[in-house]
Amino acid sequence: MSKLVIVGTIAFDAIETPFGKTDKILGGAATFIGLAASQFNTDAALVSIVGGDFPESYLNLLRSKNLNLDGVEIVPDGKTFFWSGKYHLDMNSRDTLVTELNTLADFNPVVPQEYRDAKIVMLGNLHPMVQLSVIQQMSTRPDLVILDTMNFWMDSALDDLMTVIKEIDVITINDEEARQLTGEYSLVVAARKIRAMGPKYVVIKKGEHGALLFNNEEIFFAPALPLEEVFDPTGAGDTFAGGFAGYLAQAQEINFDVMKQAVIYGSCLASFCVEKFGTERMQDLPKEEIKQRLEQFKKLTHFKI
Amino acid sequence: MSKLVIVGTIAFDAIETPFGKTDKILGGAATFIGLAASQFNTDAALVSIVGGDFPESYLNLLRSKNLNLDGVEIVPDGKTFFWSGKYHLDMNSRDTLVTELNTLADFNPVVPQEYRDAKIVMLGNLHPMVQLSVIQQMSTRPDLVILDTMNFWMDSALDDLMTVIKEIDVITINDEEARQLTGEYSLVVAARKIRAMGPKYVVIKKGEHGALLFNNEEIFFAPALPLEEVFDPTGAGDTFAGGFAGYLAQAQEINFDVMKQAVIYGSCLASFCVEKFGTERMQDLPKEEIKQRLEQFKKLTHFKI
Repeated sequence: MSKLVIVGTIAFDAIETPFGKTDKILGGAATFIGLAASQFNTDAALVSIVGGDFPESYLNLLRSKNLNLDGVEIVPDGKTFFWSGKYHLDMNSRDTLVTELNTLADFNPVVPQEYRDAKIVMLGNLHPMVQLSVIQQMSTRPDLVILDTMNFWMDSALDDLMTVIKEIDVITINDEEARQLTGEYSLVVAARKIRAMGPKYVVIKKGEHGALLFNNEEIFFAPALPLEEVFDPTGAGDTFAGGFAGYLAQAQEINFDVMKQAVIYGSCLASFCVEKFGTERMQDLPKEEIKQRLEQFKKLTHFKI
Repeated sequence: MSKLVIVGTIAFDAIETPFGKTDKILGGAATFIGLAASQFNTDAALVSIVGGDFPESYLNLLRSKNLNLDGVEIVPDGKTFFWSGKYHLDMNSRDTLVTELNTLADFNPVVPQEYRDAKIVMLGNLHPMVQLSVIQQMSTRPDLVILDTMNFWMDSALDDLMTVIKEIDVITINDEEARQLTGEYSLVVAARKIRAMGPKYVVIKKGEHGALLFNNEEIFFAPALPLEEVFDPTGAGDTFAGGFAGYLAQAQEINFDVMKQAVIYGSCLASFCVEKFGTERMQDLPKEEIKQRLEQFKKLTHFKI
């Protein structure tokens, strides 16, 4: 089984949407990425940090999905990263109410020895220098290093971000961030400029408007599934990344057709994620439902002319 | 050849975009719809009104595309409808600078006798009562009545709009308007509510984010082609409608698969429209280029899983 290293936050989230409100529940980029990737036949390890307040039951949930947690540092007298946010009525924008970095402030990810030859490395959104340190720990060059980032690092650590971007193969970024990073409004032009910074593949996430995959002059578009109701968008982008990375980890080879499939799997899993609060929908998602939804994606987009 | 009746404005447009500025050029919904529909093997008639200031050369351009102009009233001492707008940097929003209704204020469309048995009627954006009067002139019920409208009529003539919506088969509307008309944020729910108002098919246009087609529980999504540069979005929605209606006019039968193809043709033609100012790109568009672009749409969206 191919190895997949997933680096990112494991967190407590408290979420408020027009549909309801949660107390502190399981969240974090690595959590969502891991749960999505666990749908595929791959040997995935999470690299993250939590505090002594993090419930054993959450760790057991992740373990039950065959996610290796040797790289998850537990700081007994520390507190787990906490994020709280409130979504606006349109669910496309949100206000961050609380960000407590806690143990995350001192996060120095250590990739377990037996995962340093992993085929795929998925770097969740973190400080670019933390992301870079993971790449440098690998004993062999992974087939693919995938990086997720956000505008916060463009504002506060652009030089570092540009340094790590040089070293990666795939970047996942949202449309506004792609525009901010390049100063280009056209996503076609923005993707070309980002590819010139390093990554061969650029995935631009447009939330409810789908995702675009760029490579050389090839473009692929995956819609988001039109849903009756988006209950909670938290983790949708990370779930997309997890489905994308998980699919690629178990693929026989990497080419544009396989990347297209990975984008569809990512979109498919993200469409489940938003149906319930936090990780609820992803904790117990039958393969049969995924298969049915992939068919829905096909019906939604395919035509004969 | 199947007959297609196109009702809407023929206008002068003056457009300002970040790329440049035009004097009064050829514009109007019926113009864009007609030019797009003229790409198909159909007998199309425009029903509209212009003033004595409207150049014979523009009329000849439309005639040269085999568009019947018997239903275009020319008011010798009147002035042609004039619209002027300025697009913002993102090209998704615009300010209307000038709207001079002129002859349009007294527009009473008269469908020429020989087109009153048309297979398809495409009602461009106009006062709902003007749209209704066209339906009432038809001697036989058309296979499809397609209606385009906008938020302006929801604000100022909602009851009239609801009256005409009852009588139609297909509505094309943008996402914000669908939300305004139904009070629903989810486009899936909004489309269902609109179908309950009358039309069997609902097409929701999302501009650069593509278009959705709804019928019963079936959904189809056509992306907008990602472009290097959107030069001028004026007329893109009408060009979409014209491609959609033109394709349906020459189709052997109407079913969901054919509707899907019509949406793709509409999206394809709209992707050309935005490449130049006004109608420039649509005035002389080789069939070979359309064919190539349809292949691009296929490559953009099709995948194997």
